Amino acid sequence: METLSVALGSRTYPIHIGAGILAAAELYRPHLGGGAAAIVTNAVVAPLYLQRVKKALGGMRITEVVVADGEQAKSWQTLNQIFDALLNGRCGRDTLVIALGGGVVGDLAGFAAAVYQRGVPFIQVPTTLLSQVDSSVGGKTAINHPLGKNMIGAFHQPLAVISDVAALDTLPDRELRSGLAEVIKHGFALDASFVDWLESNVEKILRREHGALGYAIRRSCELKARIVAADERETGERALLNFGHTFGHAIEAGAGYGTWLHGEAVAAGMVMAAELSSLMGQL
Amino acid sequence: METLSVALGSRTYPIHIGAGILAAAELYRPHLGGGAAAIVTNAVVAPLYLQRVKKALGGMRITEVVVADGEQAKSWQTLNQIFDALLNGRCGRDTLVIALGGGVVGDLAGFAAAVYQRGVPFIQVPTTLLSQVDSSVGGKTAINHPLGKNMIGAFHQPLAVISDVAALDTLPDRELRSGLAEVIKHGFALDASFVDWLESNVEKILRREHGALGYAIRRSCELKARIVAADERETGERALLNFGHTFGHAIEAGAGYGTWLHGEAVAAGMVMAAELSSLMGQL
Repeated sequence: METLSVALGSRTYPIHIGAGILAAAELYRPHLGGGAAAIVTNAVVAPLYLQRVKKALGGMRITEVVVADGEQAKSWQTLNQIFDALLNGRCGRDTLVIALGGGVVGDLAGFAAAVYQRGVPFIQVPTTLLSQVDSSVGGKTAINHPLGKNMIGAFHQPLAVISDVAALDTLPDRELRSGLAEVIKHGFALDASFVDWLESNVEKILRREHGALGYAIRRSCELKARIVAADERETGERALLNFGHTFGHAIEAGAGYGTWLHGEAVAAGMVMAAELSSLMGQL
Repeated sequence: METLSVALGSRTYPIHIGAGILAAAELYRPHLGGGAAAIVTNAVVAPLYLQRVKKALGGMRITEVVVADGEQAKSWQTLNQIFDALLNGRCGRDTLVIALGGGVVGDLAGFAAAVYQRGVPFIQVPTTLLSQVDSSVGGKTAINHPLGKNMIGAFHQPLAVISDVAALDTLPDRELRSGLAEVIKHGFALDASFVDWLESNVEKILRREHGALGYAIRRSCELKARIVAADERETGERALLNFGHTFGHAIEAGAGYGTWLHGEAVAAGMVMAAELSSLMGQL
């Protein structure tokens, strides 16, 4: 297992990366002071990993919330499903919220944690490549509004991120490729030598070799963490990470959310941005 | 006009107290950098004060949101009414939200500002005694959930508070007395000499003499600000301010929200807490 740090002063937190670590009790234990936890996950991830995380939490009082899969779930309705479960489970301000799943679960559970009783602690256990390299770094949480994506949200940093590369063994191929687009984006935007490494190792990644995946995740997180540390609230430099996202969001919205995966739209968006930039250079 | 400061490091903000100041353009101007503002108010306050605040903002692009009056409005539905208006008004991340009204409007608009596009700046213009002495200090914002009051919210400090004592001229007598209960609570909990002053000046306050009201508001805010500065997120000392609120919340919930005013319930709650404490002392 490797651990890197997202440097944000009093909100600094570790990202642990390794195979099988979502079942590692010692990674949760330091954050369980309140004696209660709530696991938010979805209908696809729950059958695969929920029992293993519960076992790692030992004999704690645990509230489970299983939401629907997909971008449609980033809604008021699902957020209220989480609040209802937390309140019915008598979760207090010391409850640890654990987000177990991809970007949608992380954004939803993170935002729920940001505003439940004015803020409770949370941990991210991302189970997709996209969420391991992107949404788990930087504390952006949100839900969608019918008039716009991610319009309602908060900056709420997790206490820790537990990125299990073995969880990617069960990820559909299309989602693996979608996540890889954000990895490549970090290279294009911030580190040319990482792009070279990716070109040489893309086959290993697509074969899901844990070593290559682990390095790709770690390097992506390092690159993004450096930007986030300098500009937590996206007033300047952090906008660099939006490379490919202007066209990408337009593609997602135009096609209807869920038709294109986020990474697919970003990949096409990067090509369009590069072509536009090349056209502008010829003027 | 008097100005005091709530000391919260980079989130330090001024509270201005005076007669007629909700129309003072110079108090808004320093915070209007983004060039757009959204005023959130309610159906009772809008006819009385909305035009004067709009005039003070000069020729700005202004989005108006008029919500229903009363505690019932601290709901998802009303919050979404605000989000819809902000999005339809094409309000960006630099929009200044202005909460014009009592505690419900302040809590709602403050929470909307906390999470709209992950946080936009806001100013409180409290128009009730209760909101001038209580909710305008400390940045607590929230809405209610069917299973509990103030269950969903955020700590989001305003850029400034503009407390106009002349706005209290139009406040129903019952609400004036409800606000006075929180003023007295600050005295009981934190400053016995302020209780003496209140006993000597209660008639002036009930006659709404601006001088006496101004002093009562200023002293209440000073007392609360000192506690909030030491314990912004209510992990310890700030709980002192909950004197009377345990029984008070039970009374409000038991009778159905809106039947008892908040200050009325707190006043009764303080008597019950004092009696309980006296009984415990006899054991």
